[in-house]
Amino acid sequence: MKQIESIDDIRAAVRALRSENKTIAFVPTMGALHQGHISLIRKAHKHADAVVVSIYVNPEQFGPNEDFDSYPRRLQADLNVCEKEKVDLVFTPDDAVMYSSSVNYFSIEIEELGDHMDGASRPGFFEGIVLVVNKLFNIIKPDIAVFGQKDIQQFQILSRMVKEFNHSVELVMAPIARANDGLALSSRNAYLSEEERTIAPALYRALRYVEKQILDGVDKPELLLSHQKDELEAKGFQNDYLNVYSLDRLAPVSQLKEGNRYILAGAAYLGKTRLIDNIIIDF
Amino acid sequence: MKQIESIDDIRAAVRALRSENKTIAFVPTMGALHQGHISLIRKAHKHADAVVVSIYVNPEQFGPNEDFDSYPRRLQADLNVCEKEKVDLVFTPDDAVMYSSSVNYFSIEIEELGDHMDGASRPGFFEGIVLVVNKLFNIIKPDIAVFGQKDIQQFQILSRMVKEFNHSVELVMAPIARANDGLALSSRNAYLSEEERTIAPALYRALRYVEKQILDGVDKPELLLSHQKDELEAKGFQNDYLNVYSLDRLAPVSQLKEGNRYILAGAAYLGKTRLIDNIIIDF
Repeated sequence: MKQIESIDDIRAAVRALRSENKTIAFVPTMGALHQGHISLIRKAHKHADAVVVSIYVNPEQFGPNEDFDSYPRRLQADLNVCEKEKVDLVFTPDDAVMYSSSVNYFSIEIEELGDHMDGASRPGFFEGIVLVVNKLFNIIKPDIAVFGQKDIQQFQILSRMVKEFNHSVELVMAPIARANDGLALSSRNAYLSEEERTIAPALYRALRYVEKQILDGVDKPELLLSHQKDELEAKGFQNDYLNVYSLDRLAPVSQLKEGNRYILAGAAYLGKTRLIDNIIIDF
Repeated sequence: MKQIESIDDIRAAVRALRSENKTIAFVPTMGALHQGHISLIRKAHKHADAVVVSIYVNPEQFGPNEDFDSYPRRLQADLNVCEKEKVDLVFTPDDAVMYSSSVNYFSIEIEELGDHMDGASRPGFFEGIVLVVNKLFNIIKPDIAVFGQKDIQQFQILSRMVKEFNHSVELVMAPIARANDGLALSSRNAYLSEEERTIAPALYRALRYVEKQILDGVDKPELLLSHQKDELEAKGFQNDYLNVYSLDRLAPVSQLKEGNRYILAGAAYLGKTRLIDNIIIDF
């Protein structure tokens, strides 16, 4: 496994893999790798001959009051994980490599798809993600890229970017990796106190409860969702959103229609930690 | 030479060239090929083993009152030119191929670099160019791409996009091809009446006159430029701009400084035809 910091070097290393006729799968991460990331890497291995992981905490996708400074960084542990998971190349650029000039004249704007869910609560979040992933795709030029379902709005937005920008990469979605009690794995779970950690799985339980009701025929879930939000609040959560969204436009849906696919998604704070989770529903 | 209309097919054809270890030069055009384009194609041949030309009149770079409908289209003649110039692949997508969905959620915004020159007169022009060239670069993935100095603001903006988006393509600028009387070659010259055609070279003569004065030491060219605009007006032009711009920020410069490189550029209408021209000045 090679750890590479510069764009020229990662390009050369990817070219070398290509010259052996290897297909390339790419797993972009912000490090603090956990079992969820490992599942992405293993999925990547199934889809291509070589796996490239990037580890970069992208400042452009953090708001001014978000946790950029405190976001967990533990490069050596991450490299050990990658080594163990037989990653071929680990790309670890710093800010000077990824954003080489002080002035940036170009920005990528997103209509509609970032108006709800995490996009509503985190202005500029998806623009920041799209900015860095567009760069990373151009640097790595992978055949496939693996992202987790946990960040489903990110997945849908990036899929759309790939289509509109004609990137020749196939996006693969990996299922959400969960702790035994159902909590979706996240690098931010490290922020949870012991007590918060015991409460945290209630978000997923709420989603599962709503899913069951919907699959049992509730096609107007507003009251159901409102009740579950109250329950979460009573348990100590501060709700951000809990709603059903269309899969294509990522907009709230009040009346579900048979034969459609939806995203049931929730976000809530426990103390200072923001948790997100979702379930895809075939109605 | 192969003419190819679909993205999958052009990708396969480029891959086939790559598998022969050929480097790829790309010349994006809107067709109506003239000697200027031929000079781009010949430059492309000098820089790479294989040459891909695209012919596509990009609707996104025309304003609502511009000449999209009347823009000259003569595919068969263009293909003959490409054949004669030993182009390997000609990519001729239609709108359904380049903009496959009716809704577009993504746009690329440009700060500052499009505020002056053609960007000021043609709102959305460079955003439209950047949109289509970003797509074309992702489709063709060339090693180099050749653009003409005539559209120097386009060249500078695309160079900056390549840097900020990390496209792995090197942009090469080809000098302006001119008629014997100095008129910069342009597909739009076809719109000129016989009388207008005889007047048209005065734009370049004005630029040359200003260039000479500047090289002779005029470091505040405002009056000089104003006088030349009057002269052009008297000859029947309607001036759009005639000014000196910084090469990096593409902003007007009133006081030239030694050791710097500038763009002396002009745009003017003759009847309904918009002419542009420029000279790079090393001061």
